[in-house]
Amino acid sequence: MLIDGESYRTIWLNPEDTTEVCIIDQRALPWTLRIRSLRSSGDAYDAIADMAVRGAPLIGATAAWGLYLAALESPHDPGSLVSTAEHLIRARPTAINLHWAVTRIMNEIDLSGDLPAQTRALAETVCDEDVRTCHAIGEHGVPLIDELAQPGQPVHILTHCNAGWLATVDRGTATAPIYQAHEQGTDLHVWVDETRPRNQGAALTAWELHHQDIAHTVIVDNAGGLLMQRGQVDMVIVGTDRTTANGDVVNKIGTYLKALAANAHGIPFYVALPTSSIDWSLEEGGQVPIEDRDPTEVTHMQGPDNTGTQRHIQVTHDSPVVNPGFDVTPSGLVTAFITEWGSFQPDELPDLRQRMLHTDVRS
Amino acid sequence: MLIDGESYRTIWLNPEDTTEVCIIDQRALPWTLRIRSLRSSGDAYDAIADMAVRGAPLIGATAAWGLYLAALESPHDPGSLVSTAEHLIRARPTAINLHWAVTRIMNEIDLSGDLPAQTRALAETVCDEDVRTCHAIGEHGVPLIDELAQPGQPVHILTHCNAGWLATVDRGTATAPIYQAHEQGTDLHVWVDETRPRNQGAALTAWELHHQDIAHTVIVDNAGGLLMQRGQVDMVIVGTDRTTANGDVVNKIGTYLKALAANAHGIPFYVALPTSSIDWSLEEGGQVPIEDRDPTEVTHMQGPDNTGTQRHIQVTHDSPVVNPGFDVTPSGLVTAFITEWGSFQPDELPDLRQRMLHTDVRS
Repeated sequence: MLIDGESYRTIWLNPEDTTEVCIIDQRALPWTLRIRSLRSSGDAYDAIADMAVRGAPLIGATAAWGLYLAALESPHDPGSLVSTAEHLIRARPTAINLHWAVTRIMNEIDLSGDLPAQTRALAETVCDEDVRTCHAIGEHGVPLIDELAQPGQPVHILTHCNAGWLATVDRGTATAPIYQAHEQGTDLHVWVDETRPRNQGAALTAWELHHQDIAHTVIVDNAGGLLMQRGQVDMVIVGTDRTTANGDVVNKIGTYLKALAANAHGIPFYVALPTSSIDWSLEEGGQVPIEDRDPTEVTHMQGPDNTGTQRHIQVTHDSPVVNPGFDVTPSGLVTAFITEWGSFQPDELPDLRQRMLHTDVRS
Repeated sequence: MLIDGESYRTIWLNPEDTTEVCIIDQRALPWTLRIRSLRSSGDAYDAIADMAVRGAPLIGATAAWGLYLAALESPHDPGSLVSTAEHLIRARPTAINLHWAVTRIMNEIDLSGDLPAQTRALAETVCDEDVRTCHAIGEHGVPLIDELAQPGQPVHILTHCNAGWLATVDRGTATAPIYQAHEQGTDLHVWVDETRPRNQGAALTAWELHHQDIAHTVIVDNAGGLLMQRGQVDMVIVGTDRTTANGDVVNKIGTYLKALAANAHGIPFYVALPTSSIDWSLEEGGQVPIEDRDPTEVTHMQGPDNTGTQRHIQVTHDSPVVNPGFDVTPSGLVTAFITEWGSFQPDELPDLRQRMLHTDVRS
């Protein structure tokens, strides 16, 4: 997508130095566009664990490039590649795409063949597929936005956290229908939950929408209920870190509260996701490990002071803090899942699975 | 209540200089205990409007002292007192206690009499009554906590914003049952919503509970749904800025989302309030004006850096922001109101009103 009018992906191989994988360091946004260089599988692991990259699809893509960097480190040592793969999967526990991308590559690779060439080709495939997948999600989501359009007023869409292009290789999941509807001329406006504690909404989604020239307003996470009471929200679209076979949606902490409110007001609640975010091996959301993150994400915040100097300040009293990263939105609160295969109500997920099992998605 | 073991109220007349009303400047908490001096009705207005004091009951008490300071300014000009009263009522629009305290004093005063002596006595009465009211709320709330107690584990209470002693003259509304149950030996633990954008939970409620030695944990506002899913919340107690005759609760933005979640999980949701926070003149919550506050409350935060220097930083992208201060929790989501008269289910509010009309509360 666009940054100051120039087109970017979130991760790419440097064409002039193919030992370097480049990422946008998302911790520096919205203040600085900092491109970070990954030159080892350890760099890739750290980028995921430290959240220089985040978002389920992008984490998967970064791990894929981490395998390529591992293959460069030890081009003739398949055992090393296997142990790096196992290590990368543990970089973050909740997002399933990380596991999906790594196991997919490891299943397809010929360990006796050219490891760097194969891992590079597979990482490129993972990324290109992610872009196509997000575009297809967008195509299937546009009609869901357009059916809510009223003459002379925008469709008001609320989103939580960042399931935008920064969470994927390009275009995003929750934002793909928004970008594509906007490109096709639909009048829309996005309510952006700031998404404490890491403020991915206020820092990333708002930045994205600004650069795509899409009308949006940042709100605190507490405000969505009032906006729905006032009839100022037409639909909710969020992403997911992992959705289980029954349609329970594990996503950024606070998603569940918005789903409850949308349900109370009869507002459609959509989850946009690549099918690689569905964990068919788990029956329901309670089985997904919920990451407990560092309390300092809650107690401290960073940003520029009025001279532009970045400051790190304490924002809570010296009290105990817990910081769970995700919650579970039960499938009953989901209007539909918007996937690269089309839109599916929760009870249609078994049909989706059957279609996937009987079709080669990459054909 | 206690600050470092010493007993305080939130507002008091300096006994050595009765032209000075003292308040705790709540904007400096939890970092500094700053006592601010009010020497004019304009100071009192500013303290309310700038939120040096906040919380519906304390706003009322501060306006009461503002009338005393106005009477000192113009002891022989009843017209000036009347216009100051009208001005003070406009300092903040949502909390009804401001209107209640000012009109009560103006109704009781003899405008041809000694204005300073009368306003002083009435302001003292408003404050002393508030303390007694909060204590009675506590007494009526303790059994509601105790009935949830299980051997060997604390009662987990979630609260939003600050309806603590800092929101009143002393003891608090939502916290009064907590303090009194704790004093009587009930094992309890409080989940403190940080309460964006002004962080009154993380800054004020956490500070209060720390100084009262009550177990508590600060969480982001997004976390309450997950905690309820996990069975880690036994009850919710909040305050209110204004409750309408049908039992709709106008309270700090985000309260409604917690009420919806509590309802979804069968968790009791209590509203602790003095009956002066009930606006019998309004039928339902949609009629209450919702304050739109300054967007910089969302976009900027303040706190100490690692040298202890207070810094003011930007925390959101330069995007449009709206900042509504309150939302409406429909009466159907309220388990009971805990008042100085006892506990009442929403459909019992008409009975409460009848009892109040037929009893002199001050007798």
